[in-house]
Amino acid sequence: MTAGADSVDVREVGPRDGLQAEAPIAVRDRVRLIAALFDAGVRHVEACSFVSPKAVPSMAGAAEVVSALRPPADARVVALVPNLRGAELAGDAGVRELSVTISASPAYNEKNVRMSVDESVESIAAIAKLGMPVDAVVSCAFGSPYEGDIAVAAVAELGRRLLDVGAATLTLADTTGMATPRRVEEVLAATGTDVGLHLHETRGTGLVNAYAAWQAGVRRFDTSVGGLGGSPFAAGAAGNLATEDLVHLLDDLGVVTGIDLDRLLAASGLVASLVGHAVPSRVAGAGPRTRLAPA
Amino acid sequence: MTAGADSVDVREVGPRDGLQAEAPIAVRDRVRLIAALFDAGVRHVEACSFVSPKAVPSMAGAAEVVSALRPPADARVVALVPNLRGAELAGDAGVRELSVTISASPAYNEKNVRMSVDESVESIAAIAKLGMPVDAVVSCAFGSPYEGDIAVAAVAELGRRLLDVGAATLTLADTTGMATPRRVEEVLAATGTDVGLHLHETRGTGLVNAYAAWQAGVRRFDTSVGGLGGSPFAAGAAGNLATEDLVHLLDDLGVVTGIDLDRLLAASGLVASLVGHAVPSRVAGAGPRTRLAPA
Repeated sequence: MTAGADSVDVREVGPRDGLQAEAPIAVRDRVRLIAALFDAGVRHVEACSFVSPKAVPSMAGAAEVVSALRPPADARVVALVPNLRGAELAGDAGVRELSVTISASPAYNEKNVRMSVDESVESIAAIAKLGMPVDAVVSCAFGSPYEGDIAVAAVAELGRRLLDVGAATLTLADTTGMATPRRVEEVLAATGTDVGLHLHETRGTGLVNAYAAWQAGVRRFDTSVGGLGGSPFAAGAAGNLATEDLVHLLDDLGVVTGIDLDRLLAASGLVASLVGHAVPSRVAGAGPRTRLAPA
Repeated sequence: MTAGADSVDVREVGPRDGLQAEAPIAVRDRVRLIAALFDAGVRHVEACSFVSPKAVPSMAGAAEVVSALRPPADARVVALVPNLRGAELAGDAGVRELSVTISASPAYNEKNVRMSVDESVESIAAIAKLGMPVDAVVSCAFGSPYEGDIAVAAVAELGRRLLDVGAATLTLADTTGMATPRRVEEVLAATGTDVGLHLHETRGTGLVNAYAAWQAGVRRFDTSVGGLGGSPFAAGAAGNLATEDLVHLLDDLGVVTGIDLDRLLAASGLVASLVGHAVPSRVAGAGPRTRLAPA
């Protein structure tokens, strides 16, 4: 723990990363979810993805989602785009900020987007030329299921290249849940802490990694309402770090997120009803620590 | 993270705290589980509880469990006892170390054991006079579902009283999963760090609390193989901090536990087959970070 007043930028990725692995949900319900998140105080949301609806059916209708949103004046709405064509579609739909993924793992990048890392850097350079701020999300930054730990110098070098070609910001993603506090500190020592962190609970380490990163100075986190998303496993299935789990931790530390936990739990209940199953978040299941037993 | 070689005493409570909430399992299978834990390198185990078999059917046969164990010479076998009678039975069965619970929350103590806190202190004093080392486990040390946060001075004072009346050691328990890194640090600042911590994943905070406590200097933790035990909730059900989740974290930090993670995961698989359902541990579900994808 470190002392003092503090605030954290929570980027809510549930409407994109959380829902993309679920059965498709109607555009109006995705819009309703985002409205509930805004109502809870969320002011930074990855709302959709301009990918092929054939490849990712649950992300179909991205332009319709964007045009139906009524974001508060101080809210940032981001769309994930896979390539220049997607970025153009997002811009046409009125999106003003983009996120694009690239992997620190050559093998993962090849399997995920069928491009070399160099080709992905070039693609991000082309997207950045459109003029919208681009957040470059570096996947497998804390470990790759193919190569294990990527050298931190290579992760840092890739980050520098991405900023050099025009990315506005960097997010380091723990795509398959391989981060640990030790690894988080090692990577941040190489990249600096002016990055966002996108953490997964695959191995139950999302929250402890967020805490270690916060201790190290990171003030931007991607989270998903309910903890939806990520790679499903047969037992102990868990996806992204849950927004409510992070807000619960940060509230207790006195760190300002602007998000109201009770209203966020209402949004979490909404997403559970929309996907038709319980969400992995344990704070959603058990309630916050401040909710005492009836007398 | 703090630097340097380090070791942690992991007290495995799965055979007691983990199994007590499950349907009863045969004594021979409970003994088999403990043997698998010894085989994984566990050297400190809460093996059973000398409670009324009517009250806790799954803990019936405690004396039979103890007499069937073949612990390694350097292993410590502990039994939980509810009162002096239980302690005498444990001693008769050949147990040489005891654990006894008491609550920092007067309301919880009253509901759980129908005694005032003072009466529980007197009971522990009487048990300690038998001459076996007694670990006093202070429940609700990090929050009570009835009173919220108990004053840390009161938690520390109760700990001092327990040592004064003969308890050999203290364990602070997060009985209903209300601990947070902030609260852990506040309590430890009052009690000192020469305590064991018994943490729960009710709100998904067990691992981050263990990390915060380890950073503060705590070197004794109770964990349960598979993460069994604790209060079940409808969604996101989770019990004790899972042994494999803590060992996975500590291994990565270079902290010695003496436990082999692969063999521990075998014991976790055994307990899942014995209870007939998947265990909550996410490392059990997804495997350790060091287990890469096939080439």
